[in-house]
Amino acid sequence: MDESGLKMSRRIRRTPFTEQVENHNVSGYTVVNHTLLPKSFGKTLEEDYWHLKEHVQIWDVGCQRQVQIKGKDAARFVQWLTPRNLSNAKSGKCFYAPLITEDGKIINDPVLLKLSNEKFWLSIADSDVLLWVKGLAVGSNMKVSIKEPDVWPLAVQGPKAQDLMVEIFGGEIENLKYFNFNWFSFDKQKQLIARSGYSKQGGFEIYLKGFELGSKLWKKIWEVGRKYKIRAGSPNIIERIEAGLLSYGNEMTLENNPLECGLDKYCCFSNDVEYIGQKALQKFQEIGVNKVIRGIRFSGHPQKPCSKPWRVSSKLTGEYVGEITSGVYSPYFQTNIGLAMIKKGFWDEKTTVSVLSEDGMSYDGEVCDIPFTAT
Amino acid sequence: MDESGLKMSRRIRRTPFTEQVENHNVSGYTVVNHTLLPKSFGKTLEEDYWHLKEHVQIWDVGCQRQVQIKGKDAARFVQWLTPRNLSNAKSGKCFYAPLITEDGKIINDPVLLKLSNEKFWLSIADSDVLLWVKGLAVGSNMKVSIKEPDVWPLAVQGPKAQDLMVEIFGGEIENLKYFNFNWFSFDKQKQLIARSGYSKQGGFEIYLKGFELGSKLWKKIWEVGRKYKIRAGSPNIIERIEAGLLSYGNEMTLENNPLECGLDKYCCFSNDVEYIGQKALQKFQEIGVNKVIRGIRFSGHPQKPCSKPWRVSSKLTGEYVGEITSGVYSPYFQTNIGLAMIKKGFWDEKTTVSVLSEDGMSYDGEVCDIPFTAT
Repeated sequence: MDESGLKMSRRIRRTPFTEQVENHNVSGYTVVNHTLLPKSFGKTLEEDYWHLKEHVQIWDVGCQRQVQIKGKDAARFVQWLTPRNLSNAKSGKCFYAPLITEDGKIINDPVLLKLSNEKFWLSIADSDVLLWVKGLAVGSNMKVSIKEPDVWPLAVQGPKAQDLMVEIFGGEIENLKYFNFNWFSFDKQKQLIARSGYSKQGGFEIYLKGFELGSKLWKKIWEVGRKYKIRAGSPNIIERIEAGLLSYGNEMTLENNPLECGLDKYCCFSNDVEYIGQKALQKFQEIGVNKVIRGIRFSGHPQKPCSKPWRVSSKLTGEYVGEITSGVYSPYFQTNIGLAMIKKGFWDEKTTVSVLSEDGMSYDGEVCDIPFTAT
Repeated sequence: MDESGLKMSRRIRRTPFTEQVENHNVSGYTVVNHTLLPKSFGKTLEEDYWHLKEHVQIWDVGCQRQVQIKGKDAARFVQWLTPRNLSNAKSGKCFYAPLITEDGKIINDPVLLKLSNEKFWLSIADSDVLLWVKGLAVGSNMKVSIKEPDVWPLAVQGPKAQDLMVEIFGGEIENLKYFNFNWFSFDKQKQLIARSGYSKQGGFEIYLKGFELGSKLWKKIWEVGRKYKIRAGSPNIIERIEAGLLSYGNEMTLENNPLECGLDKYCCFSNDVEYIGQKALQKFQEIGVNKVIRGIRFSGHPQKPCSKPWRVSSKLTGEYVGEITSGVYSPYFQTNIGLAMIKKGFWDEKTTVSVLSEDGMSYDGEVCDIPFTAT
């Protein structure tokens, strides 16, 4: 099963951009954080892929909800939330900052935005970080207030994103470095814009404050974007897999620790900072992991995106060695590719495997590094 | 927009019953707790409605995930989670038990199952209660362990549910009282079955332990159910609205307190027990609310289920008085009906209102009590 109808209700929240998305004939959605994420607009995934790599796209990623942490103890509280060492974190910067439980398992992998020493946003993947953080605050005795602000990211992605953004927000936006943000005027109000986004093609995310401004912002970008051949799009699974970008709920869940997911470099293993799950994480580092996320390339018919995991087994012995959690045909590498959690003993590059794909066929493949590169 | 394609991925979890649901030609889903909830099987909503009231249906409600709280301090911890007075709660019983924040706002409205003094399940609506409860546990200093067990509810609903269940689980199941549960054998394993469900037609929920047993259980019920004209179904929005059953995320959100939602009777306002949000809730009771959930009946073309809220205004002055968050045409009452959060001054029975429906038309209506009754 690839897709079926999605029944709409108030519970599946609309974003400030949903009306425009509907005007552009959205044909498929998924649901993230109880919020609509458009996934297709009538073109094929491959058409969208090539377009994203050549031109510019506008993505309704309002589902990337913010959890705002504000107050005297905000900085200390935020450090307690993540294994990432934030002791030198500066305002105006974004930080990929995994959140873990006391047991060292991944709750979410948000982008943290430091607005000031007393104000932070967590731009989250698909789980109710708001409830986790509110629950922690109850027992923490720290002076913080936590809420989901009226902020809705809109992404402008692709090689022509910068030219387009300069026309709307001025030349100063060119100076914005990757994973930095600043404030820019739109409709006489200051809006936070970061150089970031869930692709490797470059671009920006506008953290729109004010639901009611959604259509106006979308229309402005669209109007200016025409000459750049702008299209309505969404995070593209082909581009994302090629780049090795992980998706919470797909590649990693509450069952996994950061080491299994290759997030070591975002974790402080020393006692320089204090955070939830520290002891568990130090223990994981000490004993080592028995599976990690790896790339798999495999032959056979070009595969549509996987709708459920594909079993990966040893080519030699037939035993289960893991599963592909996001997989698809790559028109660039001209082979099927996937991200998979692979058992120790089988994770070395070029280990030969079999992939049981959704078409019921078994294909030959091999383990490789991510991001994917030409062989 | 009524529906669009739902893109599948591992992140949108399948249940033990999804395979059977696919075999029965599911045509629409929604997503609850990152899990598929089938919503239609090719019949019209009305056909399903009449069938549910006359026969028996099998519903994949595996999305009603469980949060298990286990340990020496489990009873004390669970009481801390909810305003409901659980001091006389007995094992083997279910309790509708709202969860609230320190500010007295609703996090979720689960059914609590007391398995023993040291083991409880929260059978949840759509929000990550697991994260809320885990967050609370970090600072609580109580001896509890919290997890999402391998338990997946399957509902058997409708007037013929009991006859069917007796054939499979034996005559003893007849003795089960409403909102009580007990253990029954299936495939040589004990399974928890409650007399409960998200309809007013009577029935049971089987809290299946063991993902791998899903197809076997479904097939057994189906086979025995044939002579009762069993159908694959789902919570029916017509029947639910008529009965005044609330849906978290639709009628109430994290913005609302229990009094606004008519949940007063599930709240202890005295200091007999201690729970999170107690002071806030006592304050709400003291100052009173300025809006409550009410029924609305309204004329006009028979409406399809609302995919987004419908504005309700005063018929006399035109001012905004609230919105219908779940609405549809009722073939039983032969009028459109809806559940709506209505402002003070307009919530009296028979207050005349206008409803701006999704077809763009404005219809005359009036406020009424829930559940809906014949006029």
